[in-house]
Amino acid sequence: MPQKRYLLTPGPTPVPPEVLAALAEPVIHHRSPDFKTVFLEVLERLHEVFRTENEILVFTASGTGAFESAFANLLSPGEKALVVSHGEFGTRWQKLGAAYGADVVPLTYEWGETPRPEDVSRELAASGAKVAFIVHSETSTGVVSDIRSLAAACNEAGAISVVDAISSLGAVPLETDPWGIDVVVTGSQKALMTPPGLAFASLSERALERAASSTLPRFYWDWTRLRGAQEKGSTAFTPATSIVVALNKALELILEEGLETVYARHVRIGRACRAGAKAMGLELYSPDDDTAAVLTGILTPPGIDAVELRLALRDRHGFTIAGGHGDIVDRLFRIGHIGYVDVFDIVAVLGAVELELVEMGATVERGAAGSAALAAFEAED
Amino acid sequence: MPQKRYLLTPGPTPVPPEVLAALAEPVIHHRSPDFKTVFLEVLERLHEVFRTENEILVFTASGTGAFESAFANLLSPGEKALVVSHGEFGTRWQKLGAAYGADVVPLTYEWGETPRPEDVSRELAASGAKVAFIVHSETSTGVVSDIRSLAAACNEAGAISVVDAISSLGAVPLETDPWGIDVVVTGSQKALMTPPGLAFASLSERALERAASSTLPRFYWDWTRLRGAQEKGSTAFTPATSIVVALNKALELILEEGLETVYARHVRIGRACRAGAKAMGLELYSPDDDTAAVLTGILTPPGIDAVELRLALRDRHGFTIAGGHGDIVDRLFRIGHIGYVDVFDIVAVLGAVELELVEMGATVERGAAGSAALAAFEAED
Repeated sequence: MPQKRYLLTPGPTPVPPEVLAALAEPVIHHRSPDFKTVFLEVLERLHEVFRTENEILVFTASGTGAFESAFANLLSPGEKALVVSHGEFGTRWQKLGAAYGADVVPLTYEWGETPRPEDVSRELAASGAKVAFIVHSETSTGVVSDIRSLAAACNEAGAISVVDAISSLGAVPLETDPWGIDVVVTGSQKALMTPPGLAFASLSERALERAASSTLPRFYWDWTRLRGAQEKGSTAFTPATSIVVALNKALELILEEGLETVYARHVRIGRACRAGAKAMGLELYSPDDDTAAVLTGILTPPGIDAVELRLALRDRHGFTIAGGHGDIVDRLFRIGHIGYVDVFDIVAVLGAVELELVEMGATVERGAAGSAALAAFEAED
Repeated sequence: MPQKRYLLTPGPTPVPPEVLAALAEPVIHHRSPDFKTVFLEVLERLHEVFRTENEILVFTASGTGAFESAFANLLSPGEKALVVSHGEFGTRWQKLGAAYGADVVPLTYEWGETPRPEDVSRELAASGAKVAFIVHSETSTGVVSDIRSLAAACNEAGAISVVDAISSLGAVPLETDPWGIDVVVTGSQKALMTPPGLAFASLSERALERAASSTLPRFYWDWTRLRGAQEKGSTAFTPATSIVVALNKALELILEEGLETVYARHVRIGRACRAGAKAMGLELYSPDDDTAAVLTGILTPPGIDAVELRLALRDRHGFTIAGGHGDIVDRLFRIGHIGYVDVFDIVAVLGAVELELVEMGATVERGAAGSAALAAFEAED
C-alpha cells in the first residue's frame, strides 16, 4: 500500500477531512452573496476564537505578511519599536522592523528563555518606544510566553502591544480583550486546522488611531483599505476564497468542540508527549510543564544524530516532524501537536521514534513511551 | 435539485474537477521533499507558460501583492515611475505607486482606449522615468494592450517594463523573453484555472540589478529574500501549499492541451460570445475583434438595467457574471471566458441572458444567440 503520512510539525498542521472537502468545493466569486455569507460567518467565528470585539482583518498571505502589516501601519520611518526575541521568530521580527526602516529597540533573550514583563517595562521606559512586538508561542523552542503579563507591562507604559500568536491562537488561552492586547496576529495553518494561505490581525481602537497618522508606505497591507472593504462584507483584493470556505468549516468544528475543551486537549496532549519522551529516557528541550501545549522539543541521546532520526522517520515511516537549529541541530527534534491532533497520533509518532532510536543503537525500553503517553493523557488534573 | 452554479467572471474562474481534487489532498509540509518535488515542477511549468528563462517568484498573495512587489523592489522613495492606466487596474497601480512614495508619472487614457507605444515613448523621454508599469489585459473594459510594442517602447527608452498580465497570462499570447519584458505578474485564479491565493512575478536580470540598489522598504515582498529560498526549492515564508499542489495539476492540463491550442480556444470562444451577443441585437462595449479573448463587455438595450439583469441571472439561474462601472453601470455587463471555459458555457450563459432580456421586456430573437455563437466558434479562420 502507499505509505501513510503523518504531519506532526508546528505548522502546517493536519487538516480534518471535512475541511479538505470544503476546500474542494467549486470556486465561488469573492463579490458574490454566497461568498459574503461565508466570509461574515468566518469573521464572526474568528471573533469568538480571538476573544475580542475588535475588528479582525483577513489577509491572503502567510502569518509573516499579517505581522508585517502591523509594522507598516503602526510606525513612521525612524520611529522606535521594541521587538522582543526569544527565538527564531522574534529574530525575524527584529529583521523585519529594520527592513521597514523602524528604529528597532531589541530585547533579546537566549533561545529557550521566557520573556519577563519587568524587562519589557524597563526597555519601554528607557527607549520611549510606543509600540512593542512580542511572540506568544516561540515555535523554534516551544516556549509559550506569559502574554497576559507582557501585555500588562505594555499597557502600563502606554505602549501598543502587537502579539505574534501564529502558532498559539486556538491552542492555548489568549484573551485579546480581557488582557488588553492591541494587535493579535495569527495564521490559518496552525491551531485553526486549515491549509496555509490566510492570516489575520485583530486591531484595537488605539492601534487604529495610531495607524491613522503613521506614514510607512503600504497598500496591500493597508488597514484602512482593508477595513473599508470588510465593512461591506467584502475584501479589498481577491482573497483565497477556497481557503476561506475551508476555514469556515474548521472554525465550526473548533467552536463545536468548545474553546475551553480545545485548550484542555492541547494541555493533555502536551503532557502525553512529554511523558512518552521521558519514558524513553529522553531529555526535553521545551519546558517540562503545561505551558508546552504547542509542541514538544526533545533531545536525542548523546551520539544519536537528530537529523538522521528525523529523515528516517520521514522516509521509512511517513512521519514529518520538525528539526532543531544552531548548536543543537544534531540533538533537537520537535513534535508539533496543535490543531487536529489526538493522543493516538502521539502514540504513533513516539512509536516510530522508539523504533528508530533502537535501530540507531540507543537503549530504549520498548513500549514504555506509548503507555506513559496514554497514562499521562488519561490522568485527572 | 440544488441550483447549478456557473462562474463566468474574469476571475476567479471555474476550476477543473481534477484541480479541485488535488486541492483537497492532505496537507504536506512546505519543507518536505514531497512539497519540493511539486514546487520545482510548478516552477518549471510556469516557465513554459511565461515563455521565459527569467527567474519566477511565487507569492502567497493576490495579484496585487505580486504587483506591489515590483514597486517595492524597483524604486527608491521619490523616484519617478511611469504608470499607464486605461481602466480600473491601471488606476489602482497609480494609487499604489503614490502610496509607496514613488513620484508617479501618470499616462491615463479613457476607459476603453488602448495604450499607444508612441505615448509611452514620449512620456518616458519627457519624465526620465526608468520604470514603466503597464496593464496587458484591462479586466474592467476587455481591452488587451499590444504589449509587444509597449515593451519595445520601454526598451528603446532604457526603461524597465512591468506588465500586469494577471487576467491575460495563459489566455492570450505573451512572450516574456522574445518581447523583452522585464517583469511579468500574474495570479493563480484567472487563465491558470486554480483558486485564488498565489501570484507570480518573472524578473529579468536588469530588474534584479535595479532591485539590488533600490531602497523602498520591503520584507514579505523582498525579491532577494524570496530568491534565496527558491534557489533551494523552498519558500521564504509558509506558502499556500494546497494551492501550489492544485496549480501543478492545472499547469499540467494547460501544457497537455498546448499553449497555442489554449490561445486559439480563447480566441474562438471570444468570437462565439461576441457573435451571440450581436445576434441578440446587443451592442458590444469591449473591442469587436480577436484581441477580446479574455472577456466580452456587452451593453443592455436602452431601458434595460444591467444590474437588474445581472442579479436575475445570478439569483434565478445560477450564473455569476461581472458588472460595469461609473456612468455605464446601468448598461454594461461582462462575461468572462478565461481558463476552464468551453463554448457550451457561452451557449448556456447567452441562453440565460436571452431568457432574462425577454422577461425584462426586450425584443430578442429567441435561439439566435446560441446558434450564432456555435457557428462563430466552428468557423475556420
